[in-house]
Amino acid sequence: MNNSAGTAETTITRYSDLSGTETETDLLAVEEPLEIRLQLPGVSKHKAISITMRTPGDDFDLAAGFLFTEGIITGPAQVSKIRYCGMPAKDKNINNTLVAELADDVDIDLKRLERHFYTTSSCGVCGKSSIEALHTGAKKVETNSKFKSELIHTLPDTLRRVQAVFERTGGLHASALFDAEGNLDILREDVGRHNALDKVIGAKFMSDETPLNDRILLVSGRASFELVQKALMAGIPVLAAVGAPSSLAVELAGEFGMTLIGFVRDGRFNIYTGAERIV
Amino acid sequence: MNNSAGTAETTITRYSDLSGTETETDLLAVEEPLEIRLQLPGVSKHKAISITMRTPGDDFDLAAGFLFTEGIITGPAQVSKIRYCGMPAKDKNINNTLVAELADDVDIDLKRLERHFYTTSSCGVCGKSSIEALHTGAKKVETNSKFKSELIHTLPDTLRRVQAVFERTGGLHASALFDAEGNLDILREDVGRHNALDKVIGAKFMSDETPLNDRILLVSGRASFELVQKALMAGIPVLAAVGAPSSLAVELAGEFGMTLIGFVRDGRFNIYTGAERIV
Repeated sequence: MNNSAGTAETTITRYSDLSGTETETDLLAVEEPLEIRLQLPGVSKHKAISITMRTPGDDFDLAAGFLFTEGIITGPAQVSKIRYCGMPAKDKNINNTLVAELADDVDIDLKRLERHFYTTSSCGVCGKSSIEALHTGAKKVETNSKFKSELIHTLPDTLRRVQAVFERTGGLHASALFDAEGNLDILREDVGRHNALDKVIGAKFMSDETPLNDRILLVSGRASFELVQKALMAGIPVLAAVGAPSSLAVELAGEFGMTLIGFVRDGRFNIYTGAERIV
Repeated sequence: MNNSAGTAETTITRYSDLSGTETETDLLAVEEPLEIRLQLPGVSKHKAISITMRTPGDDFDLAAGFLFTEGIITGPAQVSKIRYCGMPAKDKNINNTLVAELADDVDIDLKRLERHFYTTSSCGVCGKSSIEALHTGAKKVETNSKFKSELIHTLPDTLRRVQAVFERTGGLHASALFDAEGNLDILREDVGRHNALDKVIGAKFMSDETPLNDRILLVSGRASFELVQKALMAGIPVLAAVGAPSSLAVELAGEFGMTLIGFVRDGRFNIYTGAERIV
């Protein structure tokens, strides 16, 4: 396989009822693991936080977005440097480990981290409301922005036009931010939908543009709890999905005053929460 | 919201170009967190292993499948009991924490577990091939089974016919096993595609039917590294996906002798690896 810019070439056997089997070259969306590590001030060892399966590209934004949307860091100045660590993966020109070096004055709650990603305890959380247990520190959406219903329809077309890698591989999710006039601000693609969103939010976070309270977020697939939670961390008031939302996505959006829209396609959409923001 | 059998009712504002806005009742796919804990023999404390966002239903199969496909347990006798722990989530009749009690003679590698789900180290894995680092102990597929190409086409139609909750919510992934004649063996749906597969494999694992080396697995979406890895753990020789596979899914399937098929739709499909098994 030959990797470049998010796609890899491979040889396939194509079968169709009409023409039988043919051998062809085809493009795949690249999936590789990214291990995100933290280096705490004054400590030379790294602390591995997460391994995520992602499409290489914008890795530093992905890491910054992940650390921010998971509630581990709260401002761009808390990261003094993000860098790759070690050698590229064998036979591939892809580096799969990175280290985020935290600034000197940053004091993160390691206990909380361990609780979040790996916990050891007796029944401390049993019966706790699921939403409480999973909160990362999101706040209620604060904005006076309103968005036009005619505008919502146009977003998936714009997304599809610029979603270059998806067109060639059929294998990527997309996240995109639009302004209140429907102009595309930023688009990212990834095999993982949460990674596509972390790349978008991470880019904005590192350039100190959060909260994103005048933006609409469009995601190419379904809206899960995780996507709503990440969008809330970035203060995004409207999340529109081409697919269906889950029950917990609707619950969380409702609790935090976010407008959640689903099934944006074919001249229609459903508003699940926060309908007053769509005029 | 009113939860039952994988769906929840909610009130939405439906907007369409033709008829403007209407208020309606709609169904959502339920998403709730499931915390999976282990209870080691002779120890009263539990060890929390993972929190996964799942659609309630077949939770014990999901847990068994997860523990098996992640390489934590290797046979059904290693689990003496699976039970819910604590009270249902507040305001919902859903229990979100379960405990798998391990049998007396089971000695699992807790160090490996910690390495897998939460690691603390200096640069031990940097530059390691991604596939090596993520291996859970899958073996090469061993089977003489062959499958007919005409059969592959029929699988998505069968899946769709029985995928009841998806039809009503648009929000669920499915995994299904078929025999070599195309008869449906077992189907499970979930908001998480890896959970749908763990439910399928877990049910077969607990009834001691693994390895599943005469079965075809069909998944409703894309084929990722994670799905190929889980299917390999269960010895499944053919994974067919309605969507696209990723580069790492193709790499892993090729390395372990699995037949990987994608884009099964509209009278055609692509074979990425193991074409000799399709006749």
